[in-house]
Amino acid sequence: MNYKHIFSQAIERLHGEGRYRVFIDILRNKGAYPNARCFHGHNGPKPITVWCSNDYLAMGQHPKVIAAMEEALHDVGAGSGGTRNIGGNTHYHVDLESELADLHGKEAALLFTSGYVSNEATLSTLAKLLPGCIIFSDELNHASMIAGIRNSGCEKQVFRHNDVEHLRELLAAADPEAPKLIAFESVYSMDGDVAPISALCDLADEFNALTYLDEVHAVGMYGPRGGGISDRDEVAGRLTIIEGTLGKAFGVMGGYIAADQMIVDVIRSYAPGFIFTTSLSPVLVAGALASVRHLKSSSEERQGQQAAAARLKAMMGEAGLPVMPSTTHIVPLMVGDPVKAKRISDILLAEYGVYVQPINYPTVPRGTERLRFTPGPAHDESMMRELVSALVEIWDRLELREAKAA
Amino acid sequence: MNYKHIFSQAIERLHGEGRYRVFIDILRNKGAYPNARCFHGHNGPKPITVWCSNDYLAMGQHPKVIAAMEEALHDVGAGSGGTRNIGGNTHYHVDLESELADLHGKEAALLFTSGYVSNEATLSTLAKLLPGCIIFSDELNHASMIAGIRNSGCEKQVFRHNDVEHLRELLAAADPEAPKLIAFESVYSMDGDVAPISALCDLADEFNALTYLDEVHAVGMYGPRGGGISDRDEVAGRLTIIEGTLGKAFGVMGGYIAADQMIVDVIRSYAPGFIFTTSLSPVLVAGALASVRHLKSSSEERQGQQAAAARLKAMMGEAGLPVMPSTTHIVPLMVGDPVKAKRISDILLAEYGVYVQPINYPTVPRGTERLRFTPGPAHDESMMRELVSALVEIWDRLELREAKAA
Repeated sequence: MNYKHIFSQAIERLHGEGRYRVFIDILRNKGAYPNARCFHGHNGPKPITVWCSNDYLAMGQHPKVIAAMEEALHDVGAGSGGTRNIGGNTHYHVDLESELADLHGKEAALLFTSGYVSNEATLSTLAKLLPGCIIFSDELNHASMIAGIRNSGCEKQVFRHNDVEHLRELLAAADPEAPKLIAFESVYSMDGDVAPISALCDLADEFNALTYLDEVHAVGMYGPRGGGISDRDEVAGRLTIIEGTLGKAFGVMGGYIAADQMIVDVIRSYAPGFIFTTSLSPVLVAGALASVRHLKSSSEERQGQQAAAARLKAMMGEAGLPVMPSTTHIVPLMVGDPVKAKRISDILLAEYGVYVQPINYPTVPRGTERLRFTPGPAHDESMMRELVSALVEIWDRLELREAKAA
Repeated sequence: MNYKHIFSQAIERLHGEGRYRVFIDILRNKGAYPNARCFHGHNGPKPITVWCSNDYLAMGQHPKVIAAMEEALHDVGAGSGGTRNIGGNTHYHVDLESELADLHGKEAALLFTSGYVSNEATLSTLAKLLPGCIIFSDELNHASMIAGIRNSGCEKQVFRHNDVEHLRELLAAADPEAPKLIAFESVYSMDGDVAPISALCDLADEFNALTYLDEVHAVGMYGPRGGGISDRDEVAGRLTIIEGTLGKAFGVMGGYIAADQMIVDVIRSYAPGFIFTTSLSPVLVAGALASVRHLKSSSEERQGQQAAAARLKAMMGEAGLPVMPSTTHIVPLMVGDPVKAKRISDILLAEYGVYVQPINYPTVPRGTERLRFTPGPAHDESMMRELVSALVEIWDRLELREAKAA
């Protein structure tokens, strides 16, 4: 048994497919985001503009968030020191859960160390508690939901992306007595399209299924209080569980679910990924609390983001760039090849100081590799003009228009 | 299908077994730890002494850690804004991984959002990459290792706790050509005993197995530089992977592995729990970096902790309390019943301002419920005297001595 050989082959496969990942080493400039410094491939930091962050509303540099974190740091210290059950349940955790429950109009909420863990832990635990449960999963669900479903050991039925009729067929064919759970996202982060939540809830009612909605790319950004697409569409009350993150639009770190008291109590009591882990640092929780509260009452950031996304999409379209038909704040530009996507990204960083990561398999299906831009309220029009003119130059240089027409 | 009934039964089972968990709501007092405020069950915060934190060396309030976090907060902001591959790879992450690799004498290290995730992601991914792999797992391994092993889908063989001869029998009976991985901990956190690392490495050499050592309850606390028991015993170089946490003795939050470059590259490239999650906040990473660096050169905290643990064990023993034979900084007091353990804990909090959580199933096996004390350099002798006299009074009040003798 030659372990080294096996591991070396695993790495070689990535190089061979052009999808070996190189992490770009940066520091953002607080107060001046999307400006940042890049430490990659040269001596000393070089100024760059960040175009691929999920700190969608720049809340990671909001004065209220920074002040709340600084205050918590000086009041209680760095870490929580324990699991939620053993010394790690701070008053900040209790307050934030109450705030998140209110945000989604639910009885209760539960914090996790990340959105990934909240999906994995909740889905795997919930389904294990329901013997014979069948999980109906959108084919484009995030890796963390897929992990949770697989780790539950339940039967999984995959429905075509956002296809209500296909889901109906699958539900109708299933045992009427079996417990059922429909798991899907609101905003699909790599395409920028939106689920028909209300129609999916209709099916859940008709077939007595529970619903699980991942809103990580929507919380803070949609709805009058930032409760996500389910807030905007006024359907939050119809969903069994809404899952969100504190690490994207809220600008900090961590994940959560909101649901009725009994479901939160069950997950709290049975999920290993919740029970056996040091709780979120109170510093993060304090920052998230300030961020959630701010975005409940301020729509300025949301409007700024929507305006920026609309402007960038229009400018890319007018420039003849292959911008994908996103209906949200996500602006994906299709490339369709991992090596070319990486090459464009490398040129943008090296020659233009533009940082946008190539998105490749397994984050998106093979053959749909892309660049994914996340303009926010802090990306101004001159930054957009520079970006689009750089892209046009590179598209011409690499003969990508011709390649596409051929 | 009545979902509510099923969930309600699941909660009722916990109440019936006396192990329904109530989280005690606290805030620690930075600079004055183990002093804290408790918000539980009365109006306004009440002062308490924390005896069950895993912030073992009180690094969560160390001035260097606080200063580093404050600086990062003001320099780069609250969250990382993305996965390690997409915008979330900060210069702090790169520096901390380099520092952790050095701490364990390995080529590389990799950060995760928690110790739980580092165990789950690494074990499940590593074993999946080795077709036919057999994982040999100590029977008392942590839930996160068990989750990783189960999620790998590999064959698992459980050896009796710290039993080298039993492991030898299992290895000898296995297919010599099959890939093998031996997974164990250094300090077992609920009993406080230590694995025979060197003897386990001898077996790994003999049977060509990889080794995976969880050092979460030892890093920072053992060895001349705080590299854990493998540092103290000078065996770090013999281990394939050493896993640690930033959330216990280092006082912050997060987990990591240290190993050779190729293994780190494989995990970095293939583990969903690493790839698809927002990276640790740079604020946490900066704090952990300061903490790791400090404990590499300062042994004062380690010595203070060992002295405090020895003193408390001696005082409990002299008082006739059933302190378990721990050889480390962990001081467990056996109760053997979940209801009584909870009752003692409740009295300590309500009447004595002493916060120590009852430890029950599934954290420890049923029938071995206990109180677990974690004295550190900041717990002084007068605190210990108060604690022991409170315990003696409660042991008498609840007739626990009699119950044990009967």
